Amino acid sequence: MKVGIIGGGAIGLLFAAYLNRNHQLTVYTNTEAQAADIRNQGIAVIKDGETEISYPHASSARHYEEKLLIVTVKQFHLPFIFNHLSPEEPKTLLFLQNGMGHIKSLSNLKGHTIYTGSVSHGAEKKGEREVQENGIGTTIFSPFPEGTGSEMIESLSTADFPFVYRSGWYEILAGKLLVNACINPLTGLLNVRNGQLIEDPHYHLLLKQVFDEVFPVLELGDEADQWKTVEDICRATSNNVSSMLQDLRMGRKTEIDAIAGYVLDLASDKNITAPILSFLTNAIKGLENN
Amino acid sequence: MKVGIIGGGAIGLLFAAYLNRNHQLTVYTNTEAQAADIRNQGIAVIKDGETEISYPHASSARHYEEKLLIVTVKQFHLPFIFNHLSPEEPKTLLFLQNGMGHIKSLSNLKGHTIYTGSVSHGAEKKGEREVQENGIGTTIFSPFPEGTGSEMIESLSTADFPFVYRSGWYEILAGKLLVNACINPLTGLLNVRNGQLIEDPHYHLLLKQVFDEVFPVLELGDEADQWKTVEDICRATSNNVSSMLQDLRMGRKTEIDAIAGYVLDLASDKNITAPILSFLTNAIKGLENN
Repeated sequence: MKVGIIGGGAIGLLFAAYLNRNHQLTVYTNTEAQAADIRNQGIAVIKDGETEISYPHASSARHYEEKLLIVTVKQFHLPFIFNHLSPEEPKTLLFLQNGMGHIKSLSNLKGHTIYTGSVSHGAEKKGEREVQENGIGTTIFSPFPEGTGSEMIESLSTADFPFVYRSGWYEILAGKLLVNACINPLTGLLNVRNGQLIEDPHYHLLLKQVFDEVFPVLELGDEADQWKTVEDICRATSNNVSSMLQDLRMGRKTEIDAIAGYVLDLASDKNITAPILSFLTNAIKGLENN
Repeated sequence: MKVGIIGGGAIGLLFAAYLNRNHQLTVYTNTEAQAADIRNQGIAVIKDGETEISYPHASSARHYEEKLLIVTVKQFHLPFIFNHLSPEEPKTLLFLQNGMGHIKSLSNLKGHTIYTGSVSHGAEKKGEREVQENGIGTTIFSPFPEGTGSEMIESLSTADFPFVYRSGWYEILAGKLLVNACINPLTGLLNVRNGQLIEDPHYHLLLKQVFDEVFPVLELGDEADQWKTVEDICRATSNNVSSMLQDLRMGRKTEIDAIAGYVLDLASDKNITAPILSFLTNAIKGLENN
């Protein structure tokens, strides 16, 4: 099957490399330099110290040929992608953005079959064509705002790179958002690995303070269960550098608006104050500038 | 006059060097190594790129001979000093600790004449016998809990190293505490110079968020005036590295309990919640560990 991956970040490179094994892949990058690098030298996936090279097609064109497109760019780059999608060429689109800042704009995207996805792959971009993979991840995909499963997406699934269908996009994305809102801004601000948030007793208190603010805003399942999930993920990804901390270290813009910004907007709609999340948002934006 | 300075930190070294010009000074250090360094090589005060050396006496003894003692150690070291003060040898004691964490323990110190002081000297310890001075500072001293002026302390005052008497210790210390609580934890957490708190618009919002929490707890004068004072001090000390950030950079224990801890205790007494200050306290304590 022909599959297009939009975005040459950590997740885009990882998906392109894995899916290229069984499908005809094109990764759409923002710059022609990166596309040429990938065409010439392939994508290197580093896992457990071993490097595997894949050779998908790569292009910086803005015309997406494929029926199935997996959109991996950050939320704030989505408007540029939307400009090149037309209702006359209906696509199946799987959106893998962090946070929920993109949800409103998806509602305005007419004529396509839309899925949202939540990925648990730990991926770290090491260069323009290099990505490090930490552990095995899953992609959970859901129709948006409603719909059915997708045979096309199902057919991408393999044992070591699974795609799992689950209806109820809100619960899936909000569950991931809760975790991201707790872990990402704190690790970015404190410049620590995920695991340090539960290893240091003071940082653990900060994590709980953020959770206690975010949980009532998102209204998701059982509080004790969700808190345990956040702690479990810190433990399971103990040595990982969160995407927000990676962005800050590389001097890139972070996804703070997609993550904390969405929760703050929702809190405001519900008349809930969220001082810690406001604080974290401004702290991360300041760090981006400095 | 014989004067004893207890503590060989930035403020202790600075006071010893300046007061040694007109008085018989002894600086009491925690280690004999530091005392020997000072005896052998003097105290170097670096100002505007020039270095001036003073040769006060220095000792690591725990018996303080002088009638006038200026206590410059951090709040958490005070109990060790108190063990060596006796009501049978009444002293005039000037306490220069940051914050107000030491106030309760001063009430239990019987038999001495006590003053609290607030210093505006910008001093940075550069080595065991080296201190950098930024700008000119003042020491405001007040009787504690009540009393009159002190001819001994007045007589230390010179044009370039002034001591100024003002009654009303609470307003003096709480005013300084408000500034410290706003500037110190934030600069420590964000790893920035004082001036960056007003130069970066996002950090400026953080500064205001902290101020808005601390001001109602301390109940000090006019809100707009106090906010202007905080901003003015950031501007006036723009290139300074706050004492808390200095401590974190050097791997030393900070004064977070004396500063934010005191405000949090007072907030709790008044049933005021202070989530940002709790957050900052745990963040700084975590940074101390890591």
